[in-house]
This record gives sequence, structure tokens and C-alpha cells, in this order.
Amino acid sequence: MKDKLISEFLGTYFLIFAGAGAIIINELTKSLTHIGVAITFGLVIMVLIYTFGHISGAHFNPAVTIGFFTSGDIKKKEAIYYILTQLIGGTSASITLFILFGNVSSLGANFPKFSSSQAFILEFILTFFLMLIIFGCSVHGKAEKSFAGITIGATVGLEAMFAGPISGASMNPARSIGPALISGNTNYLWVYVIATILGAFCASIVYKLIYR
Amino acid sequence: MKDKLISEFLGTYFLIFAGAGAIIINELTKSLTHIGVAITFGLVIMVLIYTFGHISGAHFNPAVTIGFFTSGDIKKKEAIYYILTQLIGGTSASITLFILFGNVSSLGANFPKFSSSQAFILEFILTFFLMLIIFGCSVHGKAEKSFAGITIGATVGLEAMFAGPISGASMNPARSIGPALISGNTNYLWVYVIATILGAFCASIVYKLIYR
Amino acid sequence: MKDKLISEFLGTYFLIFAGAGAIIINELTKSLTHIGVAITFGLVIMVLIYTFGHISGAHFNPAVTIGFFTSGDIKKKEAIYYILTQLIGGTSASITLFILFGNVSSLGANFPKFSSSQAFILEFILTFFLMLIIFGCSVHGKAEKSFAGITIGATVGLEAMFAGPISGASMNPARSIGPALISGNTNYLWVYVIATILGAFCASIVYKLIYR
Amino acid sequence: MKDKLISEFLGTYFLIFAGAGAIIINELTKSLTHIGVAITFGLVIMVLIYTFGHISGAHFNPAVTIGFFTSGDIKKKEAIYYILTQLIGGTSASITLFILFGNVSSLGANFPKFSSSQAFILEFILTFFLMLIIFGCSVHGKAEKSFAGITIGATVGLEAMFAGPISGASMNPARSIGPALISGNTNYLWVYVIATILGAFCASIVYKLIYR
Repeated sequence: MKDKLISEFLGTYFLIFAGAGAIIINELTKSLTHIGVAITFGLVIMVLIYTFGHISGAHFNPAVTIGFFTSGDIKKKEAIYYILTQLIGGTSASITLFILFGNVSSLGANFPKFSSSQAFILEFILTFFLMLIIFGCSVHGKAEKSFAGITIGATVGLEAMFAGPISGASMNPARSIGPALISGNTNYLWVYVIATILGAFCASIVYKLIYR
Repeated sequence: MKDKLISEFLGTYFLIFAGAGAIIINELTKSLTHIGVAITFGLVIMVLIYTFGHISGAHFNPAVTIGFFTSGDIKKKEAIYYILTQLIGGTSASITLFILFGNVSSLGANFPKFSSSQAFILEFILTFFLMLIIFGCSVHGKAEKSFAGITIGATVGLEAMFAGPISGASMNPARSIGPALISGNTNYLWVYVIATILGAFCASIVYKLIYR
Repeated sequence: MKDKLISEFLGTYFLIFAGAGAIIINELTKSLTHIGVAITFGLVIMVLIYTFGHISGAHFNPAVTIGFFTSGDIKKKEAIYYILTQLIGGTSASITLFILFGNVSSLGANFPKFSSSQAFILEFILTFFLMLIIFGCSVHGKAEKSFAGITIGATVGLEAMFAGPISGASMNPARSIGPALISGNTNYLWVYVIATILGAFCASIVYKLIYR
Repeated sequence: MKDKLISEFLGTYFLIFAGAGAIIINELTKSLTHIGVAITFGLVIMVLIYTFGHISGAHFNPAVTIGFFTSGDIKKKEAIYYILTQLIGGTSASITLFILFGNVSSLGANFPKFSSSQAFILEFILTFFLMLIIFGCSVHGKAEKSFAGITIGATVGLEAMFAGPISGASMNPARSIGPALISGNTNYLWVYVIATILGAFCASIVYKLIYR
């Protein structure tokens, strides 16, 4: 269990350090553009899956852990430890970014571009498909499992690419909570916590009903 | 059959939701640029193949289904169900996008940049090579089949990248019909339905003659 | 032999149709930028290798064929047929692009940005490493051969990305001859024919001396 | 040993030729943008791993060699030869770039954007995670080792993407020393030599303590 939790800590730390770091550094230097930020989010998920997937399962995301708990793939006690570790990892990354760059770009916190309800629906759909794709490419019996890292990384990358400008494309409570807490911008945090958990939960139900 | 059709529905829904969504969100925020839209189309095809390929074959495209029907790889009845499901999936995605964003950018419908005949020839060639590549990388006896998702996704991505600015690079009647119907822009729809089906059909004939 | 030559024709046709097409369409619409052109070249090589590699070896490039002839991996007669077919494929693609778009951007022909000697040295080094990488990732006994398509496509993509603005990053006589002949811009063609063949030839010698 | 050292020479040469070359050519033509430079760095690492990984282990980086020496995966004598060869390879590439383009953009040498301490911390974290990912994806007993090239290349690519604008994202003393020596800009070289070696060393200790 210890090596699993350390993997979840290191992975969630690096995910938020690189991803939210990309948003901050783009604000400071204007050199990444939205494309560079989205590519960073996609690639960091991919490399973390090939690095820690065989140790902890590479969740790095409380919504994903809840999705796997719903499907019965992870036990309750382990799920709680995973989620706490992910939150500590994400918050630690936000603290590091605050020390390095100051309170720039709300440390990469997520906000709705237009309305909360639009962002809520979008985050629900994004996390629903992320979780469904995770099941389809890495859990389904006939899946080409060795390609799961590429598939899940690309899913996060493409969702960040097309939906990022509207909702921030969080899909991950730990990715939203860290920057929000440390930068002090928690107004819209509920959107990113509830919509993503709901999306992963529904995907888990749909997957169990249809494909198992 | 039920899980196959649900896979075709979910896949075609997410393809049009992400791809046409990218066009709409780029119109609203100017942050993806054409490069971000093309990358979105390529990656979404790749992830859907690794998620649903082992369940339904991952067509998500009536032209591809007709290509496989021509080659004898899918039966008539199943092909008809597949195509109907794909059209429902694509149209459902366009309805969702309309609800979320309104009638922006004709919901990502395809138009010729210059002339209909130029777009027709281009869509024919694009779909011809897409279908030929599908046969070569995923059907041919000696193919590295596990790489088919990367190969076919990259094909859609590169064709969207270079040909998108001229014809929209649809290569897929379901991708064109959904946005056209819901946004009410059906003037050029015939180009994208006929040219793509013709392209996939010819590729299927060529493949059978030469490589089987 | 027939299916090999048809594969070399179709592959070289699509390589030049997509790659040189990207240059032309970027000139017409300014939407791909240099990044989109380079990505197109890289991805088209990758998809063609996974489509035709198991049939013809996926050369699509007279310099590569000469490199394989030098190393003894292809016989003289077959090499000559391959090269002729590649030249016909590339020229056919340039004719198609001329019909579709007119004589825009010299149909994607290659020119030195600054001096001929600078472009010559650059094309020599680019093709030397392309050929060396081909040997290392797809011929060497211990190579992960299934990843050769990704590796060689990425090599062409990254060389197009960094060196394209200086020399055009041809690395391929067929890619240079087609556009030059049909657009009538043959002034610098010698650079792209001689430097690339010399680069592939030297890589073949170096590889044989050291790694065999 | 001879073929290993030649592989390390050729690989480090091509890494710095392509990567630092991208910086120089972007300065001269403004066509790659930061995104194109970061993509070049990521892809060149990936292709070199699939080309030379099965021969020399594909280090191309004194910090990585020191990391593997710390973990006991390479012997002292071999490590010293590797590092010397990498330094010669990187410096040779910088000489070639100087001959081709003159002393442009300090030949791609690394500088802190803001402060030395900020760049030092960033380079430490970047190299720590690079080395940890190398262990996790290519050394750990249960890793999908065939994907190591994609994983490590993507790590370098994403770190160059998000951190490049602040510290240059060197992660590699050989990548910093070559351009600094030949361009004569050695003021900040200590940052890039010490922080990267320290990062790789600490990752090696952490990996041994937790995962072995």
C-alpha cells in the first residue's frame, strides 16, 4: 500500500505542477498558448500512466477513484486513502508553484468562461467520457491494454484542447482543489467537484450495465 | 449486437461532440486555432478506436461501414443498423452542442472554401486514403494491428490538418449530417455524403483487387 | 512485386499529396502555419509505414531505397523499379495538386532559404540521421520493430519542424522532383537530389561498419 | 563498448543539433514558435531511444548516467566514458550549428528568464521527475518497457513545453555545456550542471528506497 500511495502522491503532484504550471507560465511569458497548455496536460497524464500504472493503477484523480469504487475495482478503505493522498499531492504542487511564481493566474484554478451551468454540464460530459474510455481501453477484457496510457493521455489532452477555453476542462477534483485552496479562489469549486464525480459515477454505472 | 450499437452511438456522439465542439469553441474564444481543431479530430478518433474497437470495430462513420460492406467484412443488416445508429449519435451530439452554445459556426457544419467540385474531389481522395489505410493497417494479414488506433487517428488528424481549410475534411457523412441538420445548413451536404461514400467504396474495390 | 510497386506508388502519392498539399493550402488560407505543415509530413509518413510497411517496406523515397541497396537489403533490379515508381507517384500527386489549386507556392517545391551550400549540408545531415534511425529502429536485431512507424514518422516530423524553414527539409528526391517538375522550378533541384542520396549512402556505410 | 560509445556520441549530437538548432532557426525565421521548439526536443529524444536504446541504453545525458550510476545500473568506468562521449557529442553539434548559422541565439544556450534560484529549483524538479519516470517506465519490473521511448520523449517534450520559457528546461548538462562553451556564454552554466545532476541523483535515491 505504501508504494501505491507514494505513487499517487508523486503522480498527482507532477500532474498539477506541470499542468497548472503551464497555465501560470503561459500567463507570465505568453509563449505556450492554449495549445501548449492542452498538450502539457495530455502528455503528463500519459507519462504518469506508463510510470505508475503498474504500481498504483495511476488514478491521480478522486473522480476516477470513485468511478473505480462504484464498479467494484477498488475497496472503500483504499479509495479513501487514494483520494486523501491525491488531494495532498495536488495541494503540495500548488504550494510549490506559489513559492516559485507567486499568486499568478489564480495558480491555474478553474473558472467557468460563461455560466456555471454550462461549465457544469461540460465537466459532467467530459468526465463521463474520460471514465468510460478508461474502462473501455484498460479494463474491458479484449482491450489492447498496453495502449491505455496513450489513450487516456490523449483523452485528457483533447478534452483540455476543445473544452478548456469554456470550463477549464478539469475532469479532476484534485486538479481543481489544490490551486483553488492555495490561491484563495474557491467560488466555483463546487462545480468542478460535483460535476466530475457525478460524471465518473454515471460512466461507471453505464459501463457495468452494458459491457459487463 | 446491442453493445455494438451502443458503442457506435457513444463513439459517434463523442466524435462529433469533441470535433464539432472544437470548431464552435474556437469560434467563441479564438484559442484553439485550426491546429487545435485538427488535433482534436485526430485524437478523438484514436481514443475511440482503443475504447470501442474491440467491441464494435469502431466505425463511427457510414462511409467506413459501406467500405467494410463492400469488402464483405460486415453483413447488410448489421451495416444498416450501424449507419442508422451513427446518424442518431452524430445528430444527438449536435443537439447537445446547440443547447450548450447556440447556433454558433453552423454547429461545425462543413462547407467548401472555394468551389463544390474542388471540395468534392478533395473529400473523395481523403476518404479513399482513409479507407485504404484502415484496410492496410487493421485488416491486412501482416499488419501490426495493435497500432491501428494510432494510425487511423493520425490519418484523420493529418487530413483535417492539411485539407480542413479547403473542404472541412469531413470524410464522414455522420459528421456532416448532424451539424447540417440541426443548424439548418444543408446546401452543400450532398458533397459530403456522396464524395465520402464514393471514396470509401473505391478504396474497398482497389484493396480487394490488389491486396487480397 | 506488383503489390509492392502499387504500395510504393500509393504511398509516395499520398505523402506528396498531403505534405506538399499542406504547404499549398497554408499559402492559400494561412491557417496551418509552419507547425501544421511539419505535423502533416510526420504523421503521413507514420501512417504509410503502418499501412504499407508489411507489403513493400514503405520506402516512398529514392534516397532510402539507395540506402537499403547500399546495405544489401534490396536487390538492384527491385531498387530501380522502386525508384521509378516513387518518382511517378510523387509527380502524379503534384499534377493532382496543380489541377486542384493551380501553380500556388511552386506546388510545394523546395528552395534554400539562404544559400545552396547551407541547404546542401543541412539536407545531407537530415537524410544521414533519417537513414541511420531507419536502420537502428527497424533493421537492428534488438530493435522494438513494431514502433518503427512512430519513430520514422516522428523523425521526418521533427526534421521538418526544425529544419524546414532553412532548406525545406526534403530528405527525399521524389518529394522534391514532383513539385519542381510540374511547377517548373528546377533551379535548386540538384541540391535536394544529391545531398539526400549522399546522406543516405553515408548512413548505410556507417551503419554497416559499426553495428553489423 | 565501442558501439555503445558511438551510439551515445551520435545520439547526443543529433539531440543538440535538432533541439538547439530549433532554437536558432526559430530566432532566424520566427516560424517554429516555442511550441515547435518543445515538440522538436520531445520527438528527438523519443526517436533516439527507439534507435539506440537497445545498443547503449540511450542516455545522451550526464545527469541520467549519474542517476543510473547511483542506482547501480552502470559501472563507474563505463559511466565516465559515457559522460565524456556525451560532452564531445553535444559540443560537436554546437560547432556544426556555429558553422552553419553563426553565433545566433547563443547557439541555444540556457539562461534563467528571471532569477538563478528560480531556474535552479525548476531544473532540479524537472530532472528529478525525468529520472523518476525513466526508472518507473523502463526499469521497474512490471513496466510496459516497449513504451519507454514514447514516455521519456513525451516527458522531455512536456517539460520543455511548460518550463522552457522560465529556465530553458535543459535537464541535461551536455545539452547546456555544448552551446555555452562554443557561444561563449558560460555565466549561468553552473545552474544547469549542478541542479540537473542533483535532481537525477535524488530521484535515484528515492526510487531505490521506495520501489526496490
